Amino acid sequence: MLYGNAVVGQSGGPTAAINASLVGVIKATKLSDAIGKLYGMRNGIEGFLDDRLIEISLSEEECEMLKLTPSSALGSCRYKLPAVGSNEVKYERIYEILRKYNIRYFFYIGGNDSMDTVAKLSAYQPKEPYEVRFIGIPKTIDNDLEGTDHTPGFGSAAKYIAVTMREILCDCAVYTTKAVTIVEVMGRDAGWLTASACLAGYDGPGLDYIYLPEVPFDMEAFFRDIDSAFKKHPNVVVAVSEGIRDANGEYIASADHKGSDIFGNVNLSGAGKTLEMEVNKKLGCKVRSIELNLMQRCAAHVSSLTDIEESCMIGAAAVNAALKGATGIMMTFVRGEGDYSISCAPGEIAAIANKVKKVPAEFIVPEGNNVTAACAEYLLPLIIGETDVRYKNGMPQYFRF
Amino acid sequence: MLYGNAVVGQSGGPTAAINASLVGVIKATKLSDAIGKLYGMRNGIEGFLDDRLIEISLSEEECEMLKLTPSSALGSCRYKLPAVGSNEVKYERIYEILRKYNIRYFFYIGGNDSMDTVAKLSAYQPKEPYEVRFIGIPKTIDNDLEGTDHTPGFGSAAKYIAVTMREILCDCAVYTTKAVTIVEVMGRDAGWLTASACLAGYDGPGLDYIYLPEVPFDMEAFFRDIDSAFKKHPNVVVAVSEGIRDANGEYIASADHKGSDIFGNVNLSGAGKTLEMEVNKKLGCKVRSIELNLMQRCAAHVSSLTDIEESCMIGAAAVNAALKGATGIMMTFVRGEGDYSISCAPGEIAAIANKVKKVPAEFIVPEGNNVTAACAEYLLPLIIGETDVRYKNGMPQYFRF
Repeated sequence: MLYGNAVVGQSGGPTAAINASLVGVIKATKLSDAIGKLYGMRNGIEGFLDDRLIEISLSEEECEMLKLTPSSALGSCRYKLPAVGSNEVKYERIYEILRKYNIRYFFYIGGNDSMDTVAKLSAYQPKEPYEVRFIGIPKTIDNDLEGTDHTPGFGSAAKYIAVTMREILCDCAVYTTKAVTIVEVMGRDAGWLTASACLAGYDGPGLDYIYLPEVPFDMEAFFRDIDSAFKKHPNVVVAVSEGIRDANGEYIASADHKGSDIFGNVNLSGAGKTLEMEVNKKLGCKVRSIELNLMQRCAAHVSSLTDIEESCMIGAAAVNAALKGATGIMMTFVRGEGDYSISCAPGEIAAIANKVKKVPAEFIVPEGNNVTAACAEYLLPLIIGETDVRYKNGMPQYFRF
Repeated sequence: MLYGNAVVGQSGGPTAAINASLVGVIKATKLSDAIGKLYGMRNGIEGFLDDRLIEISLSEEECEMLKLTPSSALGSCRYKLPAVGSNEVKYERIYEILRKYNIRYFFYIGGNDSMDTVAKLSAYQPKEPYEVRFIGIPKTIDNDLEGTDHTPGFGSAAKYIAVTMREILCDCAVYTTKAVTIVEVMGRDAGWLTASACLAGYDGPGLDYIYLPEVPFDMEAFFRDIDSAFKKHPNVVVAVSEGIRDANGEYIASADHKGSDIFGNVNLSGAGKTLEMEVNKKLGCKVRSIELNLMQRCAAHVSSLTDIEESCMIGAAAVNAALKGATGIMMTFVRGEGDYSISCAPGEIAAIANKVKKVPAEFIVPEGNNVTAACAEYLLPLIIGETDVRYKNGMPQYFRF
């Protein structure tokens, strides 16, 4: 058994479930005899290098509140460690801090870049041997990590998107005049979040079309789609990924807007805004674009209970894997056969890092303008269940360190 | 007692509570001995003129679901009746339909324009006398109607805005680099919705500034505000009304963007987007604008229970007022003294129509860049309580006729 303290950090863009993984780490370290104190790095590895550590000791009640709190409660960073061997000073500094706090377990919750940090830390060999186990705990609303069934944080973002889409559909259905509503969803390279809009129509009328970055976007085909939808009803609602590109790989978001701004800024308009202008020009009907923006990653008041529980579970699984000797790995989700079930397993970071898991072809209809029933079946279990966020004065109560 | 049937319609922009008022009408007519059937007009007065009426007969369970369903379940319209005396044909047509269905009670749920419809209908005298009682039931997320403490639908929009702001604040707090986040809220002439962003900080850290259309917007003062906020923390978050104007009364939204679009469209950028570009130009720091868009009027999954219950109550009060002989009136909310309480009372439409209730001076700080504690005290009771939306397959279940 390796005895010592542990440290946990959060990195990259926040999600509604990243604190649930933190709670998983907190609870599992508390149960362990080998791990003494648990420290938290403020602002990830950047704060760690600055010796900004806090001791984490929360009551059961505080843990429950933290679990349902959006965003990274410890703070975050976007910091890339130098290549191992290129800058000895940074790594020596890290080991100085590790030794100072007698840290033997290092847990890092983050996306692709954060897994790169874990990989580098575990590859580095300090001059004076000092054993530390480095474990990555994934999180990203984008669901674009290889080697895991899905990513912690995705389910809650997907649920926010699906719920919001259902409400937008209600709103758009009230008038009898022709109108197009274009909802832009996050996702530069992978369309998972946009695909989750399909759940708005799981047991009722849904969106007309869903356009993912996996399929080259054809403006003429888009106009034909809208015409065809207008034959069915006056209110057309579509979802588009921010990252949709034309056949030449040019982003739709900026394609027609280079230099269009009087300040000389380019790329001001997102994909939704660009399509809004194109529809207005071509069809002349009422058209509106909506950007779900930050809300899709922080709307914890409508988190997926499944996501929150799994995110907590993978945090605890990381601690248990480390206690068993694992290092240099990322925890992953494995989906069981039959009825939905998830277990956690260690995965090789090298096989996962710097890859983007895209929406597979079998999840996209042949026309490229929607997702398949198989896609909905994959997504549905991830948004099941509602959390019990506590309210006071009409407002959700969130935890702050 | 006036015996006959009743009809109810919904008009104008939808809210999260307009169906709760419909349920109030449904329940109170069911209890009445004088009223036989209740008809619903599809798409308001426009559908009524086309004889598109449905008979409404819902179970208790359906009523509960409808009450929590966003948007106008009967459909809506934006239709202005001709001035009384200018177009006899339209009014004759209306009385033809009223007689056809033996309708003696006419309930119209809507905003300012819908109250204009009620006023005209009650002013018109059919050649052959036929008594009908016309009652307006207000709704608007904007809270800008005179003669009522607040408007049904406002509390739920305010709650969505406050909750979303709190979550955006969580999200924005994670990085240590300077960044400005500008959240644009609906409200062309009145800043009530934007003001409600203050509730995000009711018992914790809130937004840095709130800019309302009631105060002329000064770009230089805005930059000074941001500089001053940066002295306290790196993450500055502000809310702005879409309708903020400069000292000359020009919208900030379009002031600097005339002709800036390659398609020749003007006014493409909202106030938030314009400020985003200005901050980027002036301060060069990271800046993001967020538009709450349609979500602020349809996010029923986070409705205010107070708003839903009051909206239901005012619908029922309208029926009871009509049964007592009232016509040509709009129902209003009267706030009691001491602890928060609301009762319903009839109000004169003429004293209400075509006026805009703005945020009063005592609710705005002298610097004009935030709201006062008195404003928060006025707003807080309106967002209290959470509804019990039913979920199935991870999604809120909403009613459809």
